[in-house]
Formats: sequence, structure tokens, C-alpha cells
Amino acid sequence: MNNQRLVYEGKAKKLYETEDPATLRMHFKDDATAFDGEKYRQFDHKGEINKKLTLLLFRLLEEEGVPTHLLEDVDEVNLKVRRARVIPVEVVVRNRIAGSLSKRTGKEEGTALPRPIVEYFYKRDDLGDPMITHEHIEVLELAGKEEMDRIRRHALEVNRILRAFFSEVGIDLVDFKLEFGRAHGSEALLLVDEITPDTCRLWDADTGEKLDKDRFRRDLGDMMERYSQVLGRVERALHG
Amino acid sequence: MNNQRLVYEGKAKKLYETEDPATLRMHFKDDATAFDGEKYRQFDHKGEINKKLTLLLFRLLEEEGVPTHLLEDVDEVNLKVRRARVIPVEVVVRNRIAGSLSKRTGKEEGTALPRPIVEYFYKRDDLGDPMITHEHIEVLELAGKEEMDRIRRHALEVNRILRAFFSEVGIDLVDFKLEFGRAHGSEALLLVDEITPDTCRLWDADTGEKLDKDRFRRDLGDMMERYSQVLGRVERALHG
Repeated sequence: MNNQRLVYEGKAKKLYETEDPATLRMHFKDDATAFDGEKYRQFDHKGEINKKLTLLLFRLLEEEGVPTHLLEDVDEVNLKVRRARVIPVEVVVRNRIAGSLSKRTGKEEGTALPRPIVEYFYKRDDLGDPMITHEHIEVLELAGKEEMDRIRRHALEVNRILRAFFSEVGIDLVDFKLEFGRAHGSEALLLVDEITPDTCRLWDADTGEKLDKDRFRRDLGDMMERYSQVLGRVERALHG
Repeated sequence: MNNQRLVYEGKAKKLYETEDPATLRMHFKDDATAFDGEKYRQFDHKGEINKKLTLLLFRLLEEEGVPTHLLEDVDEVNLKVRRARVIPVEVVVRNRIAGSLSKRTGKEEGTALPRPIVEYFYKRDDLGDPMITHEHIEVLELAGKEEMDRIRRHALEVNRILRAFFSEVGIDLVDFKLEFGRAHGSEALLLVDEITPDTCRLWDADTGEKLDKDRFRRDLGDMMERYSQVLGRVERALHG
């Protein structure tokens, strides 16, 4: 495993080649970053918890008919995934106003949206990951119109599934970020990347307490305790 | 005219009540601002030139079937317009990449777009006029879905008319900003505000020279000379 070639290193994950050209190994790091990398820290066990959550939630989505890149579990911090050409667009689904949408609209964080909304951000660190629209995505030739319509439908379907699931374990799914790719050797659309408290806003449904990376972004402390609580609730719901 | 009540003061215009509650007087100021008011200067005759251009271009649009707030000419710097409840959304139509779209996409200014695109910005100085989408506009209850579809169609129609007109006088219509409102006492959609080199990017079709407010934003000098040239070409095309 140690001489596998690194094909991509992101802020919280690394991707390595395997013997099979259609398969990659996704390694979950202990690193946390915020504000385009300005803020950085390592957290023990973060990689492990995020790998477990991604495995469980991607399996749940697969069972519900959403095609994802997940193939199988490898070890504490690694998953085997299908190789995909990632579309450089972050797809954000929101059920409540929070974070950048609060700044953009001047509306208070927590305001419920009458229906989920989908936003797109151009994955370009050098440009500050700006919000873009379907039209920009077409003009930049990042994806075609039909593919974007499919991505939007998939994103809303993922929201429907995850929101209901988290609701059962007393967690309010406020918003989350997805990435999509085209499967190696085909044009099939796959959900890629991860689903973890790094990429979701998760609030305790009773107390409103934040159980996600905003604890790091906003210096609220006890981040890993909350990540563990999320994993515990998810594991109990799926295995109990 | 001097005791008329001021109902709105913007960066480049003032609106006054008249004897008729359905009518306002739009006064074009000599002020130019940029970067959310950080940069400011007065230019002799700017109000006069912009009033003339707005009068001529709104008349042209009316003749082509676009409903606007224009009623009649008053004097050098004033127009009579229909009172309207302005929708706080700046509608930007683009034929080439320039300005904020160049920053957002990392694409060079001047790049032709395969087809015109429409962007929306929330008219909120305190928030920095952020880009928003149809979905945000609905959630903020700034306008409904059908009204936004109509606004988009009107904006593209205005682009079709103005782009062809400017092309005839050797000017490349790169992009421009529109505002819409609902007519006093009805829900009829009206094009409001102004159409001037303050609100359009206009490039000489032969030389590529900027004939618009970017001369002020980017300290290129000779702004009023270029505004006069634009007015001269427009007047000759319409009266010659």
C-alpha cells in the first residue's frame, strides 16, 4: 500500500492509485482547515470518524438508489472507491439559512427555508470558491445543462434521504456540500467525496447545539466529542 | 418644482413626487461613484448626457414593445416617469465576460459568451450587493417564480434590441444592468431606472476602447468625452 502513487491531495483527504486503474484508495486525514486554509489544526481520530461516517452514509444512499463512488471498506482511515473525473463544482443543499447564505441575504442563521435550495460554488481555491449558477457552469464547460439538471435532482434526493435519516437520530440537517464525478471509463454520474461533519451543518434537534465543523471555524471547542456523538447516533440507528 | 418631496436618492439620481401621485420626476445628478461609494467624483454634464441617453434608449425600447416607466421629457436633467415599486434586484445581462464575471470565473475580460447570460444581484449596500439566484429571490420574497421568469425574458429582449442598436453605431454592448418595478396601482412589470454608460459596458467595436464608467473605476481618464461620443452616435442613429 505504501508505494501507491498519490493522485490527489485535498484538505482532509488523499487519493492513491491501486493495482486496478478503475479504483482508488481514499485516505481520510486528521487535518481540519477553514477559511480557505487560513485556519489549520489536526484532530486525533478525525480521519477515522469521518471515514466511518462516509462509509455508513454512502452505503445508506446506495441502498436508496443513489449511485456513489463507494466500493468497500479498507481499514481505519481508508476506503476503496471508483475512480471518477470530479466535476469542479461544490453542490450545496440547504434546509435552513446558515453560514454564507446568512451573510448573502442578511437573514438570521437558523431561519427555516420554505423548501430546500441548491447552490453551486466553483471549486477554485485561487478564486475563493465563488458562487456560480447553472449558466456559468455551462459557459465554463464544467458540465452540460442536462448533466446539471441530473446533479440537482440527485442532490435533492440525497437531501430527502439524509434529512429523514438524521431526523430519526435527533439531528437537524441544516445544509451540506456534495461533489459529483463521472465514472472512470463511462459518463455515469457518481456521488463522490465524503459526507461528514466537515461537509454538513448538523444541529442537535433538541438543543440546537452545533455538532459539525463550525465548532472549529467558530472556536466553540469540543469538536471531536461532537463528531463522536454524531457517529454514535448514526451507528446505533443503522446497526441497532 | 422646488418644493416637491424627495422620495428616493440614489448614487446618480433623485426621485421627486409631482402633483400626480402616479408620477415621479427623475433627476439625473452629475455624481459618479464606484466600489460601493468608496470612490466619488462629480462630472460636469454627466446628468444631462445620461438623461438624454435614458430618454432615447427607453423610447427605443417602448417602440419595440418593452414596457418602461418613461412618461416624458421635462428639461436638461429631468424625466417624468411612472411611479413603481422597485424590485431590489439588479438584473445583469452579459454578452462578453468582464468585471465581476472575470473575477468569478478566472476568464479573461472580453471573452465572448456563447449566448447571453443573466445574473441577479441583491440591491443591498449593507451586504455589498451580493449575487443571488432565482431561488434566493423567491426565499427572500423579493419576487415570485413567474415574475422572475418574466423579468428574465424582458432582460433578454432588452439585450436583443440594444445589442443590435449599439452594433449599428459601432459599439459593442458587453454587459449592462437593469432594474424592474411594479407599476403604481397595478402589478404590471416595468423597466425602471436608467440605461447609460454608468450602467452598461460599451466598447468601441473597432478599437475596443472603453466608452463607459470603467474609465472612472479604472482611472482611464476622458470619461465625459466618451459619454458624449456615445450620445452623439445614438442621436445620429435615431435622428439622422
